Amino acid sequence: MPIDPTSQIEITAYEWVPSFAQGQVRDLRPRWTCEEYTLPYKVRLISAIERPEWYYDDQPWGQVPFVRDGEVGIFESGATLIHLAEKAGALPPTGSQERAKVLSWLLAAFNSIEPFVMEFVNCTFFSRKEDWAPLRRPSLTTALEGRLKRLETALGDDEWLAGDFSIADIAMTTILRAIPDPSVLAPTPALAAYVERGIARPAFQRALEAQLAPFAEHDPKTKAKAENPAKEGV
Amino acid sequence: MPIDPTSQIEITAYEWVPSFAQGQVRDLRPRWTCEEYTLPYKVRLISAIERPEWYYDDQPWGQVPFVRDGEVGIFESGATLIHLAEKAGALPPTGSQERAKVLSWLLAAFNSIEPFVMEFVNCTFFSRKEDWAPLRRPSLTTALEGRLKRLETALGDDEWLAGDFSIADIAMTTILRAIPDPSVLAPTPALAAYVERGIARPAFQRALEAQLAPFAEHDPKTKAKAENPAKEGV
Repeated sequence: MPIDPTSQIEITAYEWVPSFAQGQVRDLRPRWTCEEYTLPYKVRLISAIERPEWYYDDQPWGQVPFVRDGEVGIFESGATLIHLAEKAGALPPTGSQERAKVLSWLLAAFNSIEPFVMEFVNCTFFSRKEDWAPLRRPSLTTALEGRLKRLETALGDDEWLAGDFSIADIAMTTILRAIPDPSVLAPTPALAAYVERGIARPAFQRALEAQLAPFAEHDPKTKAKAENPAKEGV
Repeated sequence: MPIDPTSQIEITAYEWVPSFAQGQVRDLRPRWTCEEYTLPYKVRLISAIERPEWYYDDQPWGQVPFVRDGEVGIFESGATLIHLAEKAGALPPTGSQERAKVLSWLLAAFNSIEPFVMEFVNCTFFSRKEDWAPLRRPSLTTALEGRLKRLETALGDDEWLAGDFSIADIAMTTILRAIPDPSVLAPTPALAAYVERGIARPAFQRALEAQLAPFAEHDPKTKAKAENPAKEGV
C-alpha cells in the first residue's frame, strides 16, 4: 500500500528555544528530509517553555518533532525519517541490501553514536557545573572518539554511509554536528569533511532557515517589549 | 518486492560471555523475533574475548548481532528486527497508523530509553569504582525514572506498546530487563508487569535458552581443563 501522496504533512516544532539550541532542535531532521525529497509540509508551533500537557498524548516525552501525515501520527525523529522516505519512494525496496544498509546506519546513528554524543553534551554543557562532570569527561571523550574512529573507518572513501545520500546521512550529520567541542572531531578529519558535505546541501540550508525563522518573533524578550512598548524609552 | 522466504537467516552471536552478560547479549533480540514469527535461523559463533578483525567489516563496532539473510547483511539489532519483521510479513502496511506506531515505539526504545539504561548500567556496574560514578548516580536515576514514568503513562492499560505484540515490545522488554537494580522499576509497577508479560512468552524463553546453550562448552575454564586434563587430579 503506497502512502497517499496528497496527504498533508505537519511537523510540530518549538516556537522559540534558547540560543544554544537554535539550529539543533530535532525537527531539523524531518524538515531536511521533506526538503530533500520535495515533500511539502506545514508547521505546528508549540511552546518549549510551557509545554502543553495535551502534547504528551502525541509525544510521550513532550519533545519535538511529532509528525502528522493525514491520519497518521509519528514520533521519534528516526521513525519520522523512515515514514517520510517511504512516502517519497526514497527507501530502497524491501529485502534489498541497499535497504538493509540504510536501516543499519540509521539505527547505528540513533543507538550507537547519538547516546555517546548526548552524554557528552550533557557532561560538557548542561551539567558542566556538577561535581561529577569534570571527572567523567576524560573517559567519556575517549569512548566517543573511539566510536568516531570506527565510524570513519567504516565510511572509508565513500561519500555517504549507504550508497546514495539517504536518511541515514540526515540522522548521522545532525548528530555529529551537535558535538559542541570541535576538538572531538579533529582526530577523524574524514568525518569532519562528511559533516561539511552534508550541511552544504541546499536542502539542509532550507531546513535550517525554516527552523530558525519563527524564533525572533517568539523570543520572550521581543514579546515582553511588544507587550510593554512604553518601557523601551525608559 | 517481498523478501525471499527461503533465504537462510544466520545470526552472529558470542560463543561465551562472562556471567553478568549471559542472557543479556543483544543477539537475543533477533533470536526472539525469529522465534515469534517462526523464521528458522542458524547461528555463527565468534569470540567476544579475541574479536576477529575481519568481523569489523560486518559490524563497525565488533558487536553482536550481525544478521545475514541470504545475500543481505544487517547490523544494529533495531535494523535486524525491522528486516525480520518485514520478511515475516509481521510489519503493518506502509503508510498505516499501525506501522507508524510500531516504528515510533521501536525508535523510542533505542533512542529515548536505552541510552539512559546504558548510562545507568555503566554508572552502577561497569564503572562503579570510578570517582565520578557515585556522584553521577542520583541525578541519572532521577532522569531514568522520569522517562520510565512517562513510558508507563503512555502504555496506560494496554498490553503492548503498539496494538498487537510487535518488534517494539521485543526491543523495549529486552532494554528494560537489562536494568540491574530492581528498585528502579519499582515506582512503575505497570512497566514491571509489562516486562514480566514479555519474558513469559514461550518465544522469549526459547531465544534465551538458545543464547545460553553454547556458553558452557566455550567457558574458558572448561576449555583449560579439556586442554590439560592431567591437572585435574593434582
